[in-house]
Amino acid sequence: MKYFYLSYRIPFSETDAMGIVHHSNHARYFERGRVELLRQIDLSYTGIMQRGMHFPLTDMSVKFRKPLRFDDVLWIETSVSQLTKIRLHFSYRIIRGDSLRDSFATEAALESETLVRGLTEHCCVNNEGRPREMDEEILSVLERYLVKA
Amino acid sequence: MKYFYLSYRIPFSETDAMGIVHHSNHARYFERGRVELLRQIDLSYTGIMQRGMHFPLTDMSVKFRKPLRFDDVLWIETSVSQLTKIRLHFSYRIIRGDSLRDSFATEAALESETLVRGLTEHCCVNNEGRPREMDEEILSVLERYLVKA
Amino acid sequence: MKYFYLSYRIPFSETDAMGIVHHSNHARYFERGRVELLRQIDLSYTGIMQRGMHFPLTDMSVKFRKPLRFDDVLWIETSVSQLTKIRLHFSYRIIRGDSLRDSFATEAALESETLVRGLTEHCCVNNEGRPREMDEEILSVLERYLVKA
Amino acid sequence: MKYFYLSYRIPFSETDAMGIVHHSNHARYFERGRVELLRQIDLSYTGIMQRGMHFPLTDMSVKFRKPLRFDDVLWIETSVSQLTKIRLHFSYRIIRGDSLRDSFATEAALESETLVRGLTEHCCVNNEGRPREMDEEILSVLERYLVKA
Repeated sequence: MKYFYLSYRIPFSETDAMGIVHHSNHARYFERGRVELLRQIDLSYTGIMQRGMHFPLTDMSVKFRKPLRFDDVLWIETSVSQLTKIRLHFSYRIIRGDSLRDSFATEAALESETLVRGLTEHCCVNNEGRPREMDEEILSVLERYLVKA
Repeated sequence: MKYFYLSYRIPFSETDAMGIVHHSNHARYFERGRVELLRQIDLSYTGIMQRGMHFPLTDMSVKFRKPLRFDDVLWIETSVSQLTKIRLHFSYRIIRGDSLRDSFATEAALESETLVRGLTEHCCVNNEGRPREMDEEILSVLERYLVKA
Repeated sequence: MKYFYLSYRIPFSETDAMGIVHHSNHARYFERGRVELLRQIDLSYTGIMQRGMHFPLTDMSVKFRKPLRFDDVLWIETSVSQLTKIRLHFSYRIIRGDSLRDSFATEAALESETLVRGLTEHCCVNNEGRPREMDEEILSVLERYLVKA
Repeated sequence: MKYFYLSYRIPFSETDAMGIVHHSNHARYFERGRVELLRQIDLSYTGIMQRGMHFPLTDMSVKFRKPLRFDDVLWIETSVSQLTKIRLHFSYRIIRGDSLRDSFATEAALESETLVRGLTEHCCVNNEGRPREMDEEILSVLERYLVKA
């Protein structure tokens, strides 16, 4: 499996006066998904940092297709969508539904329930914030999960 | 003048454990800039909503060039970068400096102090969330401030 | 059972430059706990609002005993600690541990793992924000869960 | 003067689906006020940290008297309300009004426009998080601004 899922229930504090989730929160949902992906492939965020690698965001884009609302139960889907020694991209979908992923019979069904899409682009830097290459070991783990476009 | 400026001092609460501003906050800075632009051209956010027009985000992109830090004093620059009867784009730059905009002698000087760039794309909808055209009056005010690419 | 539990994993976005969870987030954890308590006793937040009752906060207090950190897995414990026709208090503990509540053999063990305590006080108002009494039905459900001091 | 004022305009992102400012933000307003007080008395937050002193919150309480709304212009009033070698309390009022403090003719006028009150209690710790006494120099500066109850 190359797609990773985290279930999330929208709290009241993330809504705004339009009655929907404020658009600044989506970056936070993507981050939760990214951290979960790393955990599931046994690359903890903290562990990577301790090896002197950091992956700051350089670019982010979000497509808001439909609004998210208080108490909605959603899936945050995360995948590795591009990978080189010095760059790493993650792609995201926020999908409606409290059922398990398995119940989405088809990709079309999944797509029709997709409320938001996102992309984050990260570079690899050292403790001083200078560009560096990823450790081979980290790279080879990530490569196994790369979704070819 | 077609560029609008809001001064902002970074509060501690917007930093994260990397010691820099968490990337979810930039969408909030853009929104502060957008609301300020509307105020300065005498189109209040609240006033627009009362006329049955809403401008939900459909797309957002952010380029993180350099990190923002606690207590930094920044300018949020906002401009109208695209406009039709049914769509409205705003462009943003977050610029280091507590001096007035006038002290930036040249565009090159301004650009070298640019830490973040952003774009938000909005459509016009009615109270029920259906697409609608902007009032002519609103459109003609916005047109005066449109920055041609 | 009069104590309600929600498991929560701390996301990176809720940390600050001190490397710990920023203290503004605790109010959000309490709210998550409160919404979960209402769900578990079959009184949904949305349902209560639809009956013309709202429970705005009038007072909140928080005791920060030990810091919360990125990726900590915690329990948010919520209980109804005071109740009249017009007022409702909730008490909270944030407790370290990814094991189930049942594994806390004793109250002393639970207490030693308590990182934060909180109290929120709410009044009952109508749709116009004026004080009103709770519906008898709601009151009688809540009474069953009231923890006597 | 022992009361310090920071002007603040409520952004849209801090509202919630009730149409008012979410109560988690008040802790952030207090922090903005506290940082401003320290700046005005020439004790920068960063400077204090560099001397190996930190002032983590141990307790916070908030009284929500009236709601804050989008685009409200408010004063955050901060004062030092208790002080020993190892403890420091700040008191806060959030006051409606875009006029200058001087325009509040009387304390009664000020009080009638007070929307929120707060108190934060801090202890002094060293870089390892252990209790320590404040530097005499810091203490003597703060003492000059202590408001006697």
